[in-house]
Amino acid sequence: MRAATVIAFDQPIVVRDRRMIAPGPGQVLVRIEASGLCHTDIHAARGEWPVTPRPPFTPGHEGVGIVHELGRGVTDRKAGERVAVPWLGSACGMCEYCVSGRETLCETQVNTGYGVDGCHAQWAVADARYVVPVPEGVPAMEAAPLTCAGVTTYKAVKVAGLRPGERAAIFGVGGLGHLALQYAAIFGAETIAVDVTDAKLRMAGGLGADHTVNAAEHDPVEKIKGLGGADVAIVLAADPRVLEQAHASLRRGGRLVLVSLPKDDTMKLPIFETVLGGISVIGSIVGTRADLAEVFRLHAAGRTEVMYETRKLDEINEAIEDVLSGRVDARVVFEL
Amino acid sequence: MRAATVIAFDQPIVVRDRRMIAPGPGQVLVRIEASGLCHTDIHAARGEWPVTPRPPFTPGHEGVGIVHELGRGVTDRKAGERVAVPWLGSACGMCEYCVSGRETLCETQVNTGYGVDGCHAQWAVADARYVVPVPEGVPAMEAAPLTCAGVTTYKAVKVAGLRPGERAAIFGVGGLGHLALQYAAIFGAETIAVDVTDAKLRMAGGLGADHTVNAAEHDPVEKIKGLGGADVAIVLAADPRVLEQAHASLRRGGRLVLVSLPKDDTMKLPIFETVLGGISVIGSIVGTRADLAEVFRLHAAGRTEVMYETRKLDEINEAIEDVLSGRVDARVVFEL
Amino acid sequence: MRAATVIAFDQPIVVRDRRMIAPGPGQVLVRIEASGLCHTDIHAARGEWPVTPRPPFTPGHEGVGIVHELGRGVTDRKAGERVAVPWLGSACGMCEYCVSGRETLCETQVNTGYGVDGCHAQWAVADARYVVPVPEGVPAMEAAPLTCAGVTTYKAVKVAGLRPGERAAIFGVGGLGHLALQYAAIFGAETIAVDVTDAKLRMAGGLGADHTVNAAEHDPVEKIKGLGGADVAIVLAADPRVLEQAHASLRRGGRLVLVSLPKDDTMKLPIFETVLGGISVIGSIVGTRADLAEVFRLHAAGRTEVMYETRKLDEINEAIEDVLSGRVDARVVFEL
Amino acid sequence: MRAATVIAFDQPIVVRDRRMIAPGPGQVLVRIEASGLCHTDIHAARGEWPVTPRPPFTPGHEGVGIVHELGRGVTDRKAGERVAVPWLGSACGMCEYCVSGRETLCETQVNTGYGVDGCHAQWAVADARYVVPVPEGVPAMEAAPLTCAGVTTYKAVKVAGLRPGERAAIFGVGGLGHLALQYAAIFGAETIAVDVTDAKLRMAGGLGADHTVNAAEHDPVEKIKGLGGADVAIVLAADPRVLEQAHASLRRGGRLVLVSLPKDDTMKLPIFETVLGGISVIGSIVGTRADLAEVFRLHAAGRTEVMYETRKLDEINEAIEDVLSGRVDARVVFEL
Repeated sequence: MRAATVIAFDQPIVVRDRRMIAPGPGQVLVRIEASGLCHTDIHAARGEWPVTPRPPFTPGHEGVGIVHELGRGVTDRKAGERVAVPWLGSACGMCEYCVSGRETLCETQVNTGYGVDGCHAQWAVADARYVVPVPEGVPAMEAAPLTCAGVTTYKAVKVAGLRPGERAAIFGVGGLGHLALQYAAIFGAETIAVDVTDAKLRMAGGLGADHTVNAAEHDPVEKIKGLGGADVAIVLAADPRVLEQAHASLRRGGRLVLVSLPKDDTMKLPIFETVLGGISVIGSIVGTRADLAEVFRLHAAGRTEVMYETRKLDEINEAIEDVLSGRVDARVVFEL
Repeated sequence: MRAATVIAFDQPIVVRDRRMIAPGPGQVLVRIEASGLCHTDIHAARGEWPVTPRPPFTPGHEGVGIVHELGRGVTDRKAGERVAVPWLGSACGMCEYCVSGRETLCETQVNTGYGVDGCHAQWAVADARYVVPVPEGVPAMEAAPLTCAGVTTYKAVKVAGLRPGERAAIFGVGGLGHLALQYAAIFGAETIAVDVTDAKLRMAGGLGADHTVNAAEHDPVEKIKGLGGADVAIVLAADPRVLEQAHASLRRGGRLVLVSLPKDDTMKLPIFETVLGGISVIGSIVGTRADLAEVFRLHAAGRTEVMYETRKLDEINEAIEDVLSGRVDARVVFEL
Repeated sequence: MRAATVIAFDQPIVVRDRRMIAPGPGQVLVRIEASGLCHTDIHAARGEWPVTPRPPFTPGHEGVGIVHELGRGVTDRKAGERVAVPWLGSACGMCEYCVSGRETLCETQVNTGYGVDGCHAQWAVADARYVVPVPEGVPAMEAAPLTCAGVTTYKAVKVAGLRPGERAAIFGVGGLGHLALQYAAIFGAETIAVDVTDAKLRMAGGLGADHTVNAAEHDPVEKIKGLGGADVAIVLAADPRVLEQAHASLRRGGRLVLVSLPKDDTMKLPIFETVLGGISVIGSIVGTRADLAEVFRLHAAGRTEVMYETRKLDEINEAIEDVLSGRVDARVVFEL
Repeated sequence: MRAATVIAFDQPIVVRDRRMIAPGPGQVLVRIEASGLCHTDIHAARGEWPVTPRPPFTPGHEGVGIVHELGRGVTDRKAGERVAVPWLGSACGMCEYCVSGRETLCETQVNTGYGVDGCHAQWAVADARYVVPVPEGVPAMEAAPLTCAGVTTYKAVKVAGLRPGERAAIFGVGGLGHLALQYAAIFGAETIAVDVTDAKLRMAGGLGADHTVNAAEHDPVEKIKGLGGADVAIVLAADPRVLEQAHASLRRGGRLVLVSLPKDDTMKLPIFETVLGGISVIGSIVGTRADLAEVFRLHAAGRTEVMYETRKLDEINEAIEDVLSGRVDARVVFEL
């Protein structure tokens, strides 16, 4: 089978043949149809985070495909079913976090395309308990970006406690942001899209943003404060300065949700404003299987639109370059 | 009447005679018995915050005394009643914040001892709707520190969502911290007191702290992590580095509550740890009248102990020096 | 001025001339433009509730009009402004409920059109602090039903904790139900409208209900269970049997919200199903001023549609008969 | 091995020899040390609930013992460890309920001593993922009642959202009630114990109840209203009339938690009071593994006291009679 493989952190990804693996006990073998490219894949391939994967490995955690074979003891899945293989490859299922609805905080979780081989390949094996069924009628190519970009932004909106009638500002309208915007609207909010390119802001407008702000032309803090300030700000741009702008655009009682992971790992948090404004800064990391099932259900009900462009797996290094240089409007999905 | 008066930000406070004022419509005149000295008074007197009060003015927002006279239209209070005059001198009572239980975020609030004359004086006038009755049997000298130090830390514990069985670390055991510690225990938590002086840690132990850490001798992060990490950290020390330690001592899902206002207004917030750990950083500012009534009720039920030392109002400048140089273990209260 | 007046509980309402009253301190005089007819008005006029009003009195608590004159001390309102005069005529503003965002539970509240004269009249006086401004561009005739039917159902959805992706069943699609349905959708839910008349179900369909069930033709419990069960059921029909159906249609973890007040005051609550299903039954009473401001904001943003029919105040007794006999699809609003 | 066995619903339980079973894949074999007798065991043995177990079977779901042998694939438990075997014998681990922290609502859960053989026996096999480790230093005899009576009442207090300074009334001070009382205090509440026997009320007093009410001598509603009303009422007596009293004793905003399952399955819920008082009635069923771990942690920290009396397994029928006739003050635990 063909698989994108990271050989070393300082070399391009290689797409090469790899031996097929049979599913172990409790696993499923999935024939991947679509695999979304996430910024995390790039960090993984380059070893940019404190804890790195061990090459050789296959990245990819927005994999969608058809269950082909069940490992021993698997009873809950069946062959022929379409499933998503997400970032949370498996968790212990028994710790305080797993049992209390916060499995993405499990200390012994294993991450797809990082701790184990992922989905930028024709086939993948996955823990049967952690794949999530894709509802009837949802195409693989649309399900893929929902599997990480979707659930991550959905969860961010959820932990923000966003309510109808509140105002939500989304900083960064790309693969994640265009979905964050739609979830904020589904939660009933008035939405503001902030970005630096007009094409993305037009996309945001087309997806129903109530307001758009080009931060290259206007001070977004001033613009948002002019609307009354944001109750919730969700930052998808990987730049600490944008976090500081987002914080400054909040009204009293506001919540800033951190999602993206800038290389420069530090945000300057103004203490006085945070205390006097009763502001919360909330870290949010992907979402649980239940969150992903909700994301799929909303999409099956026609409530979200997924923006993506299709690439061949062999073009993975070019795709990465395109993402890094801002030439991609939303999400790249590999067709397999 | 005698009143401590700030003449100019660069001069000592003067205790001098001032003309008595009659209560206006909706106000009460209160014969102050006890008035606690809060760090905010010092910031006020020295003009250290972005928005300064206008001298001459009388600081003090932990005032407790007896209602002496009612202004026109006041029906809910009566002469002879003991009340507390808190930081929230008045609010609009009609905005979204006031109506939704968050009156301390009201944009048009007026603060006692800052926007209007406060309680470091023999008499004070106050908005009748915003004074809070002190229950039978609670002495004025104990009620005073509860009026700000108490309600502020009580609220911090509340917004942290601290639950029984969780672990709470209190950084800074002084006027606020010794109360924070007790509230964390009342909410059912295992408590850790962190400070740099043994005397304060002994006080913490006497008040029931489950663990104490002398941060001058040990790395508090390591010690707290050794206990399993903190679910909640509340920082009362006015030093951004302590905030960073407190953040680092949290376990996944942890909450850091910001209360104190350091001069150096910026905290370095580590983004990666915040996102991956699902951590929240929550700003909390004093508490509402309902919060203060709860604080008094807990004290009347014998569940808290207030540590304070008594001074004469004439000694206010010496008292400030003692607070700033760390010679005061808990709270200074002026007897009037 | 003309005012609908209840003379005695066993007599028709009389529309007669009444002396104008000047606004007292803290009050406003409002020139009523529109006043919605609520079922509560009928209970009031007939003395059907445990605590009755004292005739003669004017019912009506969905009044909308223009501020004409300010009583002494009123600074927050101004002449010419359009305001709504809701059921919560005034509250103490100081008790635990008022201060913690639950003013509709205030024990000393005074209710418009019940404890004091209401809005089925050309003029009304009201507590300036408890009227709520109607946003620019919202017509009085639409604002009136929102003032009680709107805020009551909005609050019911809110206390249910309804979330996107959940399924909400609305039992009874009339003056309240047609709004409940829209709020459930704004909170992101899949909606089911249940009623016994096809005309109302057509209206529900037109307003975007995802499913409709005619309970005269089908067992609603079976139908809703067939869809997977309801996460939230809101009952606006004043019949305890409907409450029991609504309870039975819930899935595990479901919430039943009680809003309507049937004459037969008792619901038979099945204990076994409630405990094993982890079900909550939640009483909800109107909404706060902040809730009403949110309701108006959503309407101003074009997110709700108000169904009503216009009557003359002189036709009040006929209107009541029409409501009681089910000849009114949604809300009756008197034009004044 | 000796095992208490239900042969038929209309016959006494038989304690007889049964063949040992080896643990299957994913299971552990536990040498039971202590097994608490729960009222549910009696319902099970008599086939009193809508869905009955299939005789022959062994009841008991408060089992505590030592892991003796691990089935294939078990890595998280180890031989020699003390564990509790609770009511939630296993759940799917994948449904919306399991993943969102509500595993006790899982539709495919299997219950210990009901759907599979339980713990009133010398040995039991159990799903390794659903047994909960008992901390060092907690004796088996104390851990047993915590395994159901403890976690059930702990969870009831938790879902009630009980907060410090609130007033909690516990109706029925026995095996469950004496623990409910202690948890209410741990959550910071003022507590009221209600029962009909003085011995139990003395026990309640000894465990720290702030108030006790003998409902055989005084109207508990009047007594509790005299204290200001209850914010939370938890009913452990299996009598619908007690539920109605508990409801009537609530103040506005109060929460009534249903735990016990009376034979007469219906509570008469007063609608008017529920709506106007903003009251919630909440069904609560046992607790999750995480809840049980918290219960054990609190006990290990010395914060709870378990009242029980020891019996031999051979005396199970007499023990049942004693429980039914009210001759047992708290919990019966079989020593094995």
